[in-house]
Amino acid sequence: MKDVLEQAVALGKTHTHEGAVATYIPELGKVDGSQLGVSVFCRNGKRISVGDTKVRFSIQSISKIITLAVALEICGFDQVFKKVGMEPTGDPFNSLMKLENTDSSPYNPMINAGAIVVASCLASEISFDTMLDTIRALCMDPDIDLDKKVYHSEMSHISRNRAIAYLLESKGYIEKNKDVENSLHFYVKMCSLSVTAESLAGLGLILANDGIHPDTGKRLLSSQTVKIVKTLMFTCGMYDGSGEFAVRVGIPSKSGVGGGILSVVDGEMGIGIFGPALDKKGNSVAGECVLEYMSHELHLHMFDPQRHTL
Amino acid sequence: MKDVLEQAVALGKTHTHEGAVATYIPELGKVDGSQLGVSVFCRNGKRISVGDTKVRFSIQSISKIITLAVALEICGFDQVFKKVGMEPTGDPFNSLMKLENTDSSPYNPMINAGAIVVASCLASEISFDTMLDTIRALCMDPDIDLDKKVYHSEMSHISRNRAIAYLLESKGYIEKNKDVENSLHFYVKMCSLSVTAESLAGLGLILANDGIHPDTGKRLLSSQTVKIVKTLMFTCGMYDGSGEFAVRVGIPSKSGVGGGILSVVDGEMGIGIFGPALDKKGNSVAGECVLEYMSHELHLHMFDPQRHTL
Amino acid sequence: MKDVLEQAVALGKTHTHEGAVATYIPELGKVDGSQLGVSVFCRNGKRISVGDTKVRFSIQSISKIITLAVALEICGFDQVFKKVGMEPTGDPFNSLMKLENTDSSPYNPMINAGAIVVASCLASEISFDTMLDTIRALCMDPDIDLDKKVYHSEMSHISRNRAIAYLLESKGYIEKNKDVENSLHFYVKMCSLSVTAESLAGLGLILANDGIHPDTGKRLLSSQTVKIVKTLMFTCGMYDGSGEFAVRVGIPSKSGVGGGILSVVDGEMGIGIFGPALDKKGNSVAGECVLEYMSHELHLHMFDPQRHTL
Amino acid sequence: MKDVLEQAVALGKTHTHEGAVATYIPELGKVDGSQLGVSVFCRNGKRISVGDTKVRFSIQSISKIITLAVALEICGFDQVFKKVGMEPTGDPFNSLMKLENTDSSPYNPMINAGAIVVASCLASEISFDTMLDTIRALCMDPDIDLDKKVYHSEMSHISRNRAIAYLLESKGYIEKNKDVENSLHFYVKMCSLSVTAESLAGLGLILANDGIHPDTGKRLLSSQTVKIVKTLMFTCGMYDGSGEFAVRVGIPSKSGVGGGILSVVDGEMGIGIFGPALDKKGNSVAGECVLEYMSHELHLHMFDPQRHTL
Repeated sequence: MKDVLEQAVALGKTHTHEGAVATYIPELGKVDGSQLGVSVFCRNGKRISVGDTKVRFSIQSISKIITLAVALEICGFDQVFKKVGMEPTGDPFNSLMKLENTDSSPYNPMINAGAIVVASCLASEISFDTMLDTIRALCMDPDIDLDKKVYHSEMSHISRNRAIAYLLESKGYIEKNKDVENSLHFYVKMCSLSVTAESLAGLGLILANDGIHPDTGKRLLSSQTVKIVKTLMFTCGMYDGSGEFAVRVGIPSKSGVGGGILSVVDGEMGIGIFGPALDKKGNSVAGECVLEYMSHELHLHMFDPQRHTL
Repeated sequence: MKDVLEQAVALGKTHTHEGAVATYIPELGKVDGSQLGVSVFCRNGKRISVGDTKVRFSIQSISKIITLAVALEICGFDQVFKKVGMEPTGDPFNSLMKLENTDSSPYNPMINAGAIVVASCLASEISFDTMLDTIRALCMDPDIDLDKKVYHSEMSHISRNRAIAYLLESKGYIEKNKDVENSLHFYVKMCSLSVTAESLAGLGLILANDGIHPDTGKRLLSSQTVKIVKTLMFTCGMYDGSGEFAVRVGIPSKSGVGGGILSVVDGEMGIGIFGPALDKKGNSVAGECVLEYMSHELHLHMFDPQRHTL
Repeated sequence: MKDVLEQAVALGKTHTHEGAVATYIPELGKVDGSQLGVSVFCRNGKRISVGDTKVRFSIQSISKIITLAVALEICGFDQVFKKVGMEPTGDPFNSLMKLENTDSSPYNPMINAGAIVVASCLASEISFDTMLDTIRALCMDPDIDLDKKVYHSEMSHISRNRAIAYLLESKGYIEKNKDVENSLHFYVKMCSLSVTAESLAGLGLILANDGIHPDTGKRLLSSQTVKIVKTLMFTCGMYDGSGEFAVRVGIPSKSGVGGGILSVVDGEMGIGIFGPALDKKGNSVAGECVLEYMSHELHLHMFDPQRHTL
Repeated sequence: MKDVLEQAVALGKTHTHEGAVATYIPELGKVDGSQLGVSVFCRNGKRISVGDTKVRFSIQSISKIITLAVALEICGFDQVFKKVGMEPTGDPFNSLMKLENTDSSPYNPMINAGAIVVASCLASEISFDTMLDTIRALCMDPDIDLDKKVYHSEMSHISRNRAIAYLLESKGYIEKNKDVENSLHFYVKMCSLSVTAESLAGLGLILANDGIHPDTGKRLLSSQTVKIVKTLMFTCGMYDGSGEFAVRVGIPSKSGVGGGILSVVDGEMGIGIFGPALDKKGNSVAGECVLEYMSHELHLHMFDPQRHTL
């Protein structure tokens, strides 16, 4: 597998120039777009890392997975999905269209509107410090912390997300007794966490292993939470490119505009990728390339007929 | 498994009154909404049917699976996906919004616009008679035929689909040299096929078995075609309820407003359901109920941790 | 003319029960919906009032006329229309659709988004106290004041307008150096002014008289400002009922959800109406009825062939 | 006035290069974009023409005025406005958005959807030959005829309008017993009429004169029809540039992508313009320039304070 990873990274490297690092906040714009790293953490304990897998970067939207998982654990399925749906939208992640245009709650917890609603459920139930402990455990990475520069950069370019938050309040999806600004700050803090490709591989492994830490045997997330999260990663995890990614790659994944991708080969391994040059939809160009290659070579597609023999 | 099916059907029966048969064409409105039948065809040859599994009904949107599969075989991946996308939309199946509102081709082959484009690719390459032979083979049902009453009923209520077809032509997704009316007739004929729950179970089994007929060993569809079709069923198969269905049931499925559901438990079995009372999104109320029960009892969810032990 | 007004009010009274007072903020919901008053101030000095014309009520959207007029005077045509358009939208006044769905600035200064942009231009140039003096002069009513109960009620139900304001900032229509919250407060204060039907007739007379106070001969608004304001009242003044109102009544008018209507019979008179029972579009039911009757009886429609002989 | 017209045309000529002739059908693309002509027909019998005022061109959307006027005469106000609204949309003329996105009938008779509905009302009541006689009388031009080349060119690029027509049928705005294709052909024939700037000035004069031919004293259109038509020209006549045109020019006008503009100075004169180079919204660049100059110099704006002294 090490060979496949090295080939994948070599191939991915040839595509980094096709993308561009995110620039909607100045801090992200400073990142070197040519970086690429892939980590694989297997259930059997094997851990392989190739490339820039120890570089810290901004987790961004991948945090939506953690927020959702913890909210499901703390608030429960009914409480969460009373305020947010489970449907892919086909719209950009920061779109207001469906919120304005239908009578529905935010379509799913992977778009900004949905993630802010989930954050509002969670923010009043858990302190950010406790949350940070949970995140470090889930990612098997005790060094994860808030990147304050990114956080402040985000907060000074928050207008659109603030607009979304108040629109949600006006429509009753954030309750009057929740503090909108507090929910928004919680959401932005989650997006500003600093992780590595290895942290994502760690989280991926926990999800691949039904929520149980494979070394300690300790259950960190319930079976139901893990099932829901993986399903939503498959249908909505790669922004408005989720459908095509599902066809081409077929591995439940979640991307972020910091260049990360978290992938879960169910029952087998977690994959973490860092490749900050993005395509137009906000997904790592090289990361998608790496995953498509790995999926093909290692038969990782959910519907690959040879997957059952693994 | 017979027990589970009988319990599932008994449970489903208690929900049929919550839905209503489709009435957008008079012929569909005449169907008895209290009917329910489930067939399971397993790879090992076992075939179980409970309830109204020999009643013929209108295939409707489930035909989009067949049209897509055959188009991929005949025209190829690139030709098909040059004209249609792979993204879920979150919009109703007959919506024009995204077609009008974005510069994109129809978002996927499961919405009407996408299916009409795929039909236009196929209609000039294959006669409907040849198509019928293919369908009978894929469904293991030599008696499938065009229901002429439904066909004529559809054609006299075709305005909206005709509008979609001409809008597609105006945007270049149906080529000038293709006959729009011809494509539309092909599409409607496909929707007017008369099938049973058992026909759908047959098709499901072929898809579960990598496109190979398990009795004869004959490959009917390529591995790639089958993989694509199952992925799109998972992300877009249940209209704008696909996301929630994926979370709750987690079995690649395609529904039709005739009350049918085609489901594929990958590597294991095909499931065919007939339950014509529909919910507001156009999915069989009792059918969804049956599948959720089966998924839970038999651990059929794609991300069920016990599924790997099957 | 007194007779016509009395007949109009009598007729209008029979329709008040068809509407309902605004309830989006509690303060407005307390108003008695059966009230109706009409004031006419003519250029020749004649002033006629019938019904509840001295009752104070909330000016609401009619203030958009004043904000626009004063902004045109202080900031100039180019500065204002760099940030807001002049096109009717056909959408509800608080819609975000076009803002989200097109690359345009807010379509016109009569919808909330447009009015908030205009308020943001003005708020940094003039104190609210100075603004209040201007308003009292324009309406010939020294008693106009902020209704603090309405203001606080509005501010505690401001989520949607706050969402609009931050969306405007995110799209660059409110400049970074303007304080969004300050602009919003200015906008809400303008909406919370307390006026009477007579105040509106006063403002209408100034507009009918080319911006000049007919008694003192003092010019309060430039000719260009008055022309622009009247044109926008004609094309966009009655929410998404402006087009039909223009056909049926044909008098430049602006309505507010407090139940007021300001109308300008160009060159002749100002009309002020208070009738708080609203139709679904937010216009006074009885007020529209009164104006249609007056337009017909007195040939006040802009395109009435007998208007030229007046 | 002759001087003003000559200056206006000279000024307009300097702007023709900023626009481009319509190319959506090949026939229109062949027209010389540098042409410009203005005709004014006054109530007092004076007729002034400057520039290319005898060149025949395609009437296109200006025909919507005639279709509406004749439909109001034959079918009546209620019958027509049961199927079409009176609201400006802010959307492009061929948009499907509001039709798809709201429960409303087409917003007004000046957008394609609205004009097709009006054509469907009319097509079953009057033959096209009789219609042609009416048109010639209304435009004071016996030579107006169908341009068959344009007609056939339109019919071979009709997909989008055909889509609109069938969408209208599917929503019940074209009745089942009306022939959609017949309505569409009627609509396209109306668009394919061949007129001159002088024909438009003739029609404008009839509308300026309350529907009465000033020479013969014969009433051609009812007062009510004329009032409605002029109001809709003011609010919706210049595509999605109507609002800004109303502010800047303030003369009820209707443009067409053939380069024509029909303008009505109420009570005074009709103006016809031919200037085929269009701006992005489909309005004649030079034509708008000419009208803004004339409006300013001759005080023709509806809300020009000096207009009352004319």
